[in-house]
Formats: sequence, structure tokens, C-alpha cells
Amino acid sequence: MEKKITILGAGLVGSLLSILLQKRGYQVTILERRSDMRKANMSAGRSINLAMSVRGWAALEMAGLKKDIEEIAIPMYGRQIHNLDGTTVFQAYGKNNEAIYSVSRGDLNKKLISLAEANGVSIQFNQRVEDVELDTQVLKIEDAQTLVKSEYQDHEMIIAADGAFSALRNAYVKKDRFNYNQFYIEHGYKELFIPAGENNSFLIEEKALHIWPRKNFMLIALPNFDGSFTCTLFFPFEGNPSFSAIKTEADAKQFFETQFPDALELMPTFAEDYFKNPTSSLVTVKCFPWIYEDKSFLIGDAAHAIVPFYGQGMNAGFEDCRILMEIMDASSSKSWKEILPIYQQARKKNGDAVADLALQNFIEMRDLVADPLFLARKKIEKQLGLLYPAQFNSVYEMVSFSNTSYHFAISCQKAQDKLLQKIMAEGDFETNVNLPEFKNLLVNWIVEYANEVALLEK
Amino acid sequence: MEKKITILGAGLVGSLLSILLQKRGYQVTILERRSDMRKANMSAGRSINLAMSVRGWAALEMAGLKKDIEEIAIPMYGRQIHNLDGTTVFQAYGKNNEAIYSVSRGDLNKKLISLAEANGVSIQFNQRVEDVELDTQVLKIEDAQTLVKSEYQDHEMIIAADGAFSALRNAYVKKDRFNYNQFYIEHGYKELFIPAGENNSFLIEEKALHIWPRKNFMLIALPNFDGSFTCTLFFPFEGNPSFSAIKTEADAKQFFETQFPDALELMPTFAEDYFKNPTSSLVTVKCFPWIYEDKSFLIGDAAHAIVPFYGQGMNAGFEDCRILMEIMDASSSKSWKEILPIYQQARKKNGDAVADLALQNFIEMRDLVADPLFLARKKIEKQLGLLYPAQFNSVYEMVSFSNTSYHFAISCQKAQDKLLQKIMAEGDFETNVNLPEFKNLLVNWIVEYANEVALLEK
Repeated sequence: MEKKITILGAGLVGSLLSILLQKRGYQVTILERRSDMRKANMSAGRSINLAMSVRGWAALEMAGLKKDIEEIAIPMYGRQIHNLDGTTVFQAYGKNNEAIYSVSRGDLNKKLISLAEANGVSIQFNQRVEDVELDTQVLKIEDAQTLVKSEYQDHEMIIAADGAFSALRNAYVKKDRFNYNQFYIEHGYKELFIPAGENNSFLIEEKALHIWPRKNFMLIALPNFDGSFTCTLFFPFEGNPSFSAIKTEADAKQFFETQFPDALELMPTFAEDYFKNPTSSLVTVKCFPWIYEDKSFLIGDAAHAIVPFYGQGMNAGFEDCRILMEIMDASSSKSWKEILPIYQQARKKNGDAVADLALQNFIEMRDLVADPLFLARKKIEKQLGLLYPAQFNSVYEMVSFSNTSYHFAISCQKAQDKLLQKIMAEGDFETNVNLPEFKNLLVNWIVEYANEVALLEK
Repeated sequence: MEKKITILGAGLVGSLLSILLQKRGYQVTILERRSDMRKANMSAGRSINLAMSVRGWAALEMAGLKKDIEEIAIPMYGRQIHNLDGTTVFQAYGKNNEAIYSVSRGDLNKKLISLAEANGVSIQFNQRVEDVELDTQVLKIEDAQTLVKSEYQDHEMIIAADGAFSALRNAYVKKDRFNYNQFYIEHGYKELFIPAGENNSFLIEEKALHIWPRKNFMLIALPNFDGSFTCTLFFPFEGNPSFSAIKTEADAKQFFETQFPDALELMPTFAEDYFKNPTSSLVTVKCFPWIYEDKSFLIGDAAHAIVPFYGQGMNAGFEDCRILMEIMDASSSKSWKEILPIYQQARKKNGDAVADLALQNFIEMRDLVADPLFLARKKIEKQLGLLYPAQFNSVYEMVSFSNTSYHFAISCQKAQDKLLQKIMAEGDFETNVNLPEFKNLLVNWIVEYANEVALLEK
């Protein structure tokens, strides 16, 4: 007899997880609130392009899907900074030509849904879960089209991959002793659009993540396969300037002419997009526990919704799936009672860490990338990584180009700050690094750093 | 035409607030989930006696109720510490014989409900608010006795005084951009009981708050008017020892015989109480915003549920009411649009501060009160207050014996820690304080401290 699992949500994490579980002999059903996005028009104007990095690829590889997805991914080797004076600067992400990959959320999701069905997963669309009875595992469902209500209980396990506003988590919040924190930043976002040029040509650099950093706000653009760019304005809700201060088309145009003139030139549908597309909020969710007995658990955004500024939301969710599968594969009993506490123990601290990293990175993206001192530091970090590859890897590289735990990466920050401050206090690194005296100093510092982080929990 | 207000919850804050508003010409209706506690038996076994302090009295005085409540309050002039060896030590709370006052939650609540009705407030019992439509102000209600559902909308304002699990706040949580944090500590509590002796005599010191501090857990006892004591065990849910490790009557008795032998002797119904009374959890809630347009707002525990370890839950809620009335009385327009933002601005930071103070004070009560260094510091703090009354008042005294804002009190902590460390590093204060050299030093430090806290936001 096959063991039945119901997954809530056919988003990126739910679809991928269904494939991984189906391949391990489970019979998986997904209940998805929305209609089938392969048939309907996507709910437009709310998507931020994804930046797939090493963790995302690792999980796709485990599911045997890496090749399928590589076909729809564009490598971005660095940030293309657009200064206010119209000049641009390219900042490579890695020291070894590493890239993160721009993927359309919609395209990726459609592909994963089709692959899930091809693997035998049953996906039921338009099934809105209104409530979950935790002890009986009964799902209370409303059909979004017929509005018929029903109860569903045909599973030994419920997995919530239903995102930042998870229905299962809402049931957890009402439980005694469930810790829950939802936190909105003061900025919202709005999708905008740069179309392709002639013959699907890219009107700005293709293989880069474009940023217009303006201290307290920013515009970004990620490439699409057809030559267009999906752009996102991250901007305060209130104050001046802010979404609420921009009331008319003239306000919007004037603001963009002042702040992003080179981008505005490339946006023929700017005014239409600005007022048609919604202004969306950005939430961080931390909660505990993630599991309820051997009956249900949270994964991905449902467990740890994060802001998009490190490009790690999907990557973190996919890593949840990979680690869960590793724990399951290593378990001889295959019992949820054994697997789930290990999963929670392994992932909770990483969910918290990536949430904090993502919040921090907003300041980096919107402000620091235009700061010469910050850029000097980034350069030194890369050189340190090349000079002492066994001892030093920058936090950014650990997060984006390795499977090192988020928790370890964020724990290294203080030690890296201290190390880089010492190095930069000595003056120009390029010059110093050739002086024998400084080299000796540097080796000592690196050993000190390595010893310090060796004590941190991996 | 009278302006109509509906208050959710006829608890302490809701009842008091209804009187304050009714006296200002509003027509107030309270919807209370439970039945009338004056008729029914109290839901037994979950109450922690209240410690009324200056803020509570100030609000009662504003409502003209101070005398009524003084009749049912017992002054507690200090902590009576019960050591493991059976010895006891009395620690006065104040330097001028100040007291906090033990009041039975049930008695106080019944009295406030009757006073509210006497002032013309309409109280509807057994009305469980299931949901709130924020924009229309429609309350969806279920009658707890008949189970009949209805909608209620006969008010220009809804005020949620419905406690830590507020129905209105649940509706706020689902709103976009509502920040919400519920946090449970790892300890729970259980009510126990020491009956009166012959002729309603008190079997342990009457005018004290009794503590059996045992580092990671504690027992406390507060006096009742009839000579009995309401006791509360604060104890971890999990681990060893913990609630979950105590399974049988023998376990419970053995644990108390080892840890609280002198209390156990005075508890004839110990075993019955231990297994009959529930084990309850302790939650802290922080959220923002507290107000929704000019349609509804949160007050008391609904806005800032806190743990009970500073005895400030009711006091903070009552202070919310007093400050709200002061803002209202100072407003010429009496418009909620004007009043509510000022109320929120004034109280949010104090709600956060008292929540943090209460969490900190658990460690003080269960552990530090038995620490000689801590006691030495407390003694010096009092002497400083007597020597330099214009410059120094300890955080504890600000919180319990003044109306100084919680936010200012918690902001002074670091400066007080620094000052006391410097003083205690010099050796015995009693001796030093008579040496001219030390006196000069001390005056300089006090001036330094006063300058430091003068910069803090009041």
C-alpha cells in the first residue's frame, strides 16, 4: 500500500517536494488555491524574478531536474550598477566567474507542475484550504470556482508549502505555545517592465542583475529569456518620496525622470504599469515549532517567509526539501516521528539566519553597492578567498555559491567584519599585500580568523 | 445624541474603561465572552493574584474608585524569601515603606463590573466575538449559551479590551502590514492554595509577597482577605524537573517535599489542586499598529500581553486607560482621528518596555533574590535614592512606585548598571560612604549618571 501525503500549495517548493516524495514511493496529492497557471493568465504584476543559486541547483539535481531548468535560466555574473549620472559599473559576484541565474517564477513553476504530474503527482487546482483540524488532519476546503465547501482527509501526512500566509500555519498560530512573528518592512514593491529590443535583443547588459541604488530605495531589473527585463521598484510606503506621495502620472514620471532617467527611457508602458500593477508589501515570518506530532509540518515560506534581497527565498525552500530528503533517506524506520524532529532541528536555525541575512542585504543593495569603501572591502574579500581558499570565504559567497549552512554564514559575519577592519585600517591593500611585513601580519590575522570561526557551530 | 462605543471584554481593563468613558458622556456597551462571574462560579485554578501598584491606583483614582478598591487590597511591603533550609528573609520593596497591594482578580473584576453597571454601562454576557469586519465595524457574535449567531453594529467605535487572545487583534493580524509577535516562555504555571488558619488567621506573614526562589523555577504566594494565600508554581513545561516529568501524586509530593517542604505542610489539598488545576502557558504579545482608522483600537493585554513577573499587567492596562482619557480630555475636537494616533504614539513604546521588563524580572524573582550580590546592590540603590533623591531612583521603584514611563525606566537600566558596578567595585558601600574621598567620587558618578539619563527620552 502506498503512503499518502497531501501537500498544500503547488508553488515552487510544493511542486519540487512532490516530485522528490513521489520518487520515494509516496502517493502525493497537491491542493492548490489558484487555478492552473498553465491555462489561465498569470496574476500579473506581482512577480520578482528569481535568482537561482547553488542551493536551488543542488535540490533540482537531487530531483533529476537540473537540465530541465537550466534551459530557462540566464546566468548573471554580477551587479550592473546604474549611477544617477547615467554611468554604469559592473561588480562581479564571484572570484571564479560564478553566476546566479535569473529565472521567471511563472515559467519555472509551470515547468515544475508539469514535471510533478509526469511523475504521478495528482494536483487539484482551485482548492482553497480554509482551516485545518490538526488532530484529525481534516482539511476544510472551499472550491474557488464552485464555492462548494468540503472536508478532505485522505493522507497520513499534511505538508504545508503554501507560502507566507500558510493556512496550516494559521491553525498552528491558534495552538497554545506556538511562537509566531510576522514583521513587515516599511518598503513595498511594484513590478515594472523593460521590453526587448528588435529581434529579442537585450537593451541593457543581459548577463547581470541591474541595480539603481538610491540609498533609501532602489530599482532592479532581471533579464528574461525573450530579451525583456522584469523590473522591481522597492520604495517606502510612506514619507517623501514614497508610494503614497506619488499620486498622479505626472508625479510618477517626474520621480523617475529625476531618479531613474535611463530606465524610464526603456519603459514605454511605464505609466500604465505603475498604476495598473499593485503595490505589494514585504513580510518576514519566523515561527516555532514547524512540526505537529507526526501529522503535519511547514516547509519553505510557510515556515520562514523572507524578504527578497538576498535572492534566497526559493533557494532556502529548495534546500529545506533536499535536507528533508537526506534525513529521510538516512532513516531506517522512515517514520515521521523520527524524521521530523531532525528536520526541524536542522532547518529552524537556518530559516532564522536566512531571514536575517535577507533583511541586512536590502541595505547593501539599495545603498552600500554605491559606497567606495564597501566596494573596496568586497574586492579585498575576493582576494583573501583566492590567497587563502582553505581559510576564508566571504559571507556572500558562502550564501550564494556554496551549500554551507546559512546559520554558519551569518555566524561568521562578526569575525569577517573584524578581520576586514584590521586590514583596511592599514591602508591600500593592493600595495600592502606585496610588503613582507604586512604579509606576515595578514597570515596571523587569517589564522586568528580561521580559529575563531572554527569554534562556531556548523 | 450620545455617541456609542462597544468594548470587547468585561475584564479589568474593559470594565474600568467603560466607567471612564461613560462618565465622559459616551454610551458604552460591553460584550463579554463568559457568563456573569458574579452569578457563576469563577473558572477556578487559573488566577494569579494581582499586585496593584501606583499606576493602577492612579487610574482608579481618576475613575473615582480608589476607595472602593482599597477595601479589598492587602499591602505587601516586601518579599518574604523562603530558603531551601527553611529560613526566611524579608526584603522591603521601597525605601520609604511603600507597598504593592494584593488583590483577588475575581473580587476586583466583580466589583468593577457592578460599578460599571451602576454608572450606566450595558454589559452583555455570553457574547463570543468570532470575527470583526474592520471597515464596516460589524461584529460576528455567537451566543455562548444558545449558540445563536448574530451580527452586531451599533457603535461608532470598537475598543478591544479582550486580552491576550483578542478577537479584534486576530482580525488585525490578517491585515496587510500588521506586525505581530506572540512569544511563549518555556515555563508554565499552576495555581495552588494555602488556606487560612483558625479565625481567618494568616499562617505565613500577611503583608508580604512570598517567594520560594529555586533558580530555574519558583513558587510564590499572595495573601487573600480571608487569611488564605493564592500560590502559583512557575515551572518549566519540559526537562527535568518539569511539569511533564511529574506524572503521579507521588512524584508531585516528592518534588514539593524536596523543594518547598514548608509550603507543602500548609497545603492540605495539594495533591488534589495539583492535578485538578490546569497547567497554563505564559505569552508575550507585541504588535503594531494598535489602531484602525477611527473605527477600532486595542488596549491593555490585547495590545501588549505580558508575563506576570513584574506585577504590571493590570497596572499597564489601567495606565493605558488613564493616558487615553488625558489625551481625550486635552483634545478640543474629541475626534478619534485626532486622539488615537496620539494614544498609540504615547503607549506603544511603553507596552514594549513593560513586556521586556516583565520578562527580565522572572530571572530576578526566581533566582537573583537569593543572590547576596544582588541583595547588596538593592540595598545600595535604596541608599542612593535616599542620599540623592533628585538624581537617582531605581528602575524597580520607577516601575512600581511612580508613574514615570516604563520606556524611560527601562532606558535607565544600562546607566544604573554602570553606576552600581563602579560603586560595588570599590568594596563595602557602608564603609565607603563615610570616607570623604569616596563621597567625592560618588557625587561625580551620580552627576554623570544624572546627565546620562537626562538625555534619554522621557
